[in-house]
Amino acid sequence: MNESDLIHQLRAIATDPAARGLLDDAAVLGELVLTHDTIAEGVHYLPEDPPASVGWKLAAVNLSDLAAKGATPAGALLSLTIRDEDGTWERGFLDGIAAACESYGLPLIGGDTVALPAGAPRVLGLTALGRTTASVPARSGGQPGDTLWLAGTVGDSAAGLQLLQADPRSTGPLVDIFRRPVPLLAAGRALAPAASAMMDVSDGLLLDCARLVEASGCGAEIDLDALPLSRAFVAERGAGRPARLFAATGGDDYALLAALPPALDPFTLSLPADARLTRIGTLVDGASLTLRDSQGAVPLPERLGHEHRSS
Amino acid sequence: MNESDLIHQLRAIATDPAARGLLDDAAVLGELVLTHDTIAEGVHYLPEDPPASVGWKLAAVNLSDLAAKGATPAGALLSLTIRDEDGTWERGFLDGIAAACESYGLPLIGGDTVALPAGAPRVLGLTALGRTTASVPARSGGQPGDTLWLAGTVGDSAAGLQLLQADPRSTGPLVDIFRRPVPLLAAGRALAPAASAMMDVSDGLLLDCARLVEASGCGAEIDLDALPLSRAFVAERGAGRPARLFAATGGDDYALLAALPPALDPFTLSLPADARLTRIGTLVDGASLTLRDSQGAVPLPERLGHEHRSS
Repeated sequence: MNESDLIHQLRAIATDPAARGLLDDAAVLGELVLTHDTIAEGVHYLPEDPPASVGWKLAAVNLSDLAAKGATPAGALLSLTIRDEDGTWERGFLDGIAAACESYGLPLIGGDTVALPAGAPRVLGLTALGRTTASVPARSGGQPGDTLWLAGTVGDSAAGLQLLQADPRSTGPLVDIFRRPVPLLAAGRALAPAASAMMDVSDGLLLDCARLVEASGCGAEIDLDALPLSRAFVAERGAGRPARLFAATGGDDYALLAALPPALDPFTLSLPADARLTRIGTLVDGASLTLRDSQGAVPLPERLGHEHRSS
Repeated sequence: MNESDLIHQLRAIATDPAARGLLDDAAVLGELVLTHDTIAEGVHYLPEDPPASVGWKLAAVNLSDLAAKGATPAGALLSLTIRDEDGTWERGFLDGIAAACESYGLPLIGGDTVALPAGAPRVLGLTALGRTTASVPARSGGQPGDTLWLAGTVGDSAAGLQLLQADPRSTGPLVDIFRRPVPLLAAGRALAPAASAMMDVSDGLLLDCARLVEASGCGAEIDLDALPLSRAFVAERGAGRPARLFAATGGDDYALLAALPPALDPFTLSLPADARLTRIGTLVDGASLTLRDSQGAVPLPERLGHEHRSS
């Protein structure tokens, strides 16, 4: 297995500026923002996961990439594999796709359906296309001195997954967030024109933050105590340092991480009424990511997030 | 297996006009033309096929959809699955993708790479995006009285496949065309503004023609003797009725089928110098597809083409 060699080969092919070196959440072609996510059964979801939740999540993950670039959904193309079965799973999956598309105004405009050999794991893909009128923030635009903000909360989805792993019949708000993540499209549109850098948090806040600072050529200091946690998360896991480190590395959050120029007060932006925007740190000179809380410096955990999802 | 139920469900979701009812080669969103093709190992290609040819073909199939709508390639997003191996196959596949993208000016701008469970068949997808300045012909715009034209030749690819099935070491122009089909982008751009209806011929001329007339609500008469055959095809299989029926149903041609208003002389269009444009028939009232040659009426073959590829 030689994934990094292949990524290197892909980058050598994808030299068009629209590709952004394959280092961003999405391609940016003039006013268009384009993203594609593929998920495989047994890798990105389990055969026993509810198919509607798999469909919702595939659409939501793509929509979150559009949100991170401040784009408004314009269309989606679905790649649907069909196995030699009765189609019940696929019908549920399409129900989830349809619900997410309807909820977020993403018209399904095309795609492909293909048969798979019997017993092959399903592989499902979605290309989403958005439009933007403003400049599109890259991951790489952060500057030392920028303030670092998070739209949304972290940890809910990872906590929901752990509840399901302990008992597959678990229910409640954390399980709901894990199954039906919410792309922050309106917050993304409000933040994008002002942001030096922006990306969505899909693989764990610390890992994604490390990617943002690496792309931007700077470092970051994060205040663990500032991390926005939901009431449901705190009720389940508390708000101490271990809970906060769990939230900062859990992944599947689909929050937005934005670096803003120091003089900007983001509450002057046209944020949606229900947006939860929290300052979590500062970009600094250097190349390191450092954590602190009220007790002082916090050692970086060994695992910053989930490396399994490549962009 | 309930593919038609699922297509029905997809059509109920894809109500946006850009989707064209999922009945066309591509989605059309303003000046944008978008298409996605997915191929699966063991279904659309064989594990022993040269990987560079699989990559080329995936790109070429998408480019042919853009050609059928008169669009100029603007960008592609690749979905690449990676198995737990040494990556040799994937490197060859990417070489083929890169060669096709370079040959036809299709910039690779994004996508996704995902791991697959060991032993799972590969599933590869490409979304291609094009731009057009003219109106985009649908499959459904044909009118009785329109003349029916084919850009390119038919039968080469199917003849090449049969050569390979007889001897996997076969070489020559027919094998080349099977492995590296040529999307007719310049011919598509020249024909699109004038065409009442246009589509690419991927699954067999007769099957695709049946789809065009069904979408257009009319019938067609086709002159089998007029079918454009290459010298290599005629040298291999002759030009008699059986050879012509083989060519008309073989598939993988990536020729363009266009219905033109009766008063239009297509040779007044800005066709590329090497375009091979041939009148093959006429659209007529009714709903039936009829074939004739110099000996008279030709019964329609039972199999009009390959049904395996859905759009």
